Amino acid sequence: MNSTKHISSLQNALIKNVLVLKDKSRERKKTGSFLLEGIREFELALKGNYSIETIFYAEDLFSETKIEALIASLSPQPELISVSKEVYQKIAYRETTEGIIAIAKAKVHQLSELKFKNKNPLILIAEAPEKPGNIGALLRTADAANLDAVIIANPKTDLYNPNIIRSSVGCVFTNAIAMGNTTEIIAFLKQNNINIFCAALTASKVYTHVSYKTSAAIVVGTEATGLSNEWLENATQNIIIPMEGEIDSMNVSVSAAIVIFEAKRQRSL
Amino acid sequence: MNSTKHISSLQNALIKNVLVLKDKSRERKKTGSFLLEGIREFELALKGNYSIETIFYAEDLFSETKIEALIASLSPQPELISVSKEVYQKIAYRETTEGIIAIAKAKVHQLSELKFKNKNPLILIAEAPEKPGNIGALLRTADAANLDAVIIANPKTDLYNPNIIRSSVGCVFTNAIAMGNTTEIIAFLKQNNINIFCAALTASKVYTHVSYKTSAAIVVGTEATGLSNEWLENATQNIIIPMEGEIDSMNVSVSAAIVIFEAKRQRSL
Repeated sequence: MNSTKHISSLQNALIKNVLVLKDKSRERKKTGSFLLEGIREFELALKGNYSIETIFYAEDLFSETKIEALIASLSPQPELISVSKEVYQKIAYRETTEGIIAIAKAKVHQLSELKFKNKNPLILIAEAPEKPGNIGALLRTADAANLDAVIIANPKTDLYNPNIIRSSVGCVFTNAIAMGNTTEIIAFLKQNNINIFCAALTASKVYTHVSYKTSAAIVVGTEATGLSNEWLENATQNIIIPMEGEIDSMNVSVSAAIVIFEAKRQRSL
Repeated sequence: MNSTKHISSLQNALIKNVLVLKDKSRERKKTGSFLLEGIREFELALKGNYSIETIFYAEDLFSETKIEALIASLSPQPELISVSKEVYQKIAYRETTEGIIAIAKAKVHQLSELKFKNKNPLILIAEAPEKPGNIGALLRTADAANLDAVIIANPKTDLYNPNIIRSSVGCVFTNAIAMGNTTEIIAFLKQNNINIFCAALTASKVYTHVSYKTSAAIVVGTEATGLSNEWLENATQNIIIPMEGEIDSMNVSVSAAIVIFEAKRQRSL
């Protein structure tokens, strides 16, 4: 059992550190730590075997007993710190929140550490996604489809950006995620005999005319520039979702979901 | 040919009206007018037969000749007003923009005015969607799938909200859109022998085990509350997208796209 600290001053050094961690990707990278906020996110992080270092809870929203029940199974036990309403509002990222914020340890996300659930894994790869909301939506779809992995090629945005955590509704913690550059990811896929299906507006093969029953990676680029030539040239098959309206692209998370769930449909037959 | 007015004062009465139109849904409803911004949006609105009343263009971004070419085919000709950079920045909704903002006439969006392209129409219905970003994404998917119509049941958000126009990348103008309450929409669908497929987390039928080759309406609710009982009880079939991960829902625009493109796949066989 911890003896709980209490902080009510915005000038407290630890609170100042938390604010830097919230706002600065650089600080998250330097310390290997990040902030997570909300009960659901907290629970999903525990499921994802993230290690929790410190918990701040708003004294008017949580009792110490309630917090201790939430972390009863953890070893080592995180440090518990109750904070005043004013301090909580300052460190919270969301406007409506549940009174719990934790400092957690980031994972490394190396390609070499990926372990697949299925013999014929189904993987989503996104090249250089930038908008946190899109990354969050991709991770949410990947969780729902129970994909074997999500790989981010040439990442542009810190995975522990508060907006990714929020928009993924915690799925940043439930997916097996790896990051790397496009060249090494392609080499990894080839070594593991995983077919590469690249979504491209210029492809001639309709995405429903391809079999995803073997080991398969579905690769999507950004809306603005699509996939790099390196991906398109190394694809087992480039695929297209036919666009029949006035516009020429869909949201990347929507496109990815359409192909992923077609693969799931085929695999369930 | 118009003789172009010029406005450089933020105190100009017309500019003040434009600002109210931008910010107030009430004003848009009262006047039956709305603002559209950007070249692509402008072109899609023309394709959608929207009538344009007034065009404001930033004098440092557009020449009068260029604007006149853009509107050459319109009858009646809209009023052209060049504005100073300062005025433009004040009336623009986006941070990066293309120097053109127009006042256009809203459509009425009555159910009774819907005309379907196909004998067996494919329709998307969203009940009470609230977030402009979600509505925009739904409209974008509907355009890509060339749906016969999008119907919004019990609308909560003004369709001409600048954020819907932006997030739909102008697809609010390219889709056939109707609005109404759930009861009248169900009556309309039944009168027209259109099958009703309601996406529900509690349904037992997997969405791929249903045929969408007949006239079909795919109905989605909000992430927070799902569809009302009135929809679920009047469905030809309630359908579910199997969720195999830790979370229990996907983004509504993602779910809708998965079912819509399954319907498209079946129809292309």
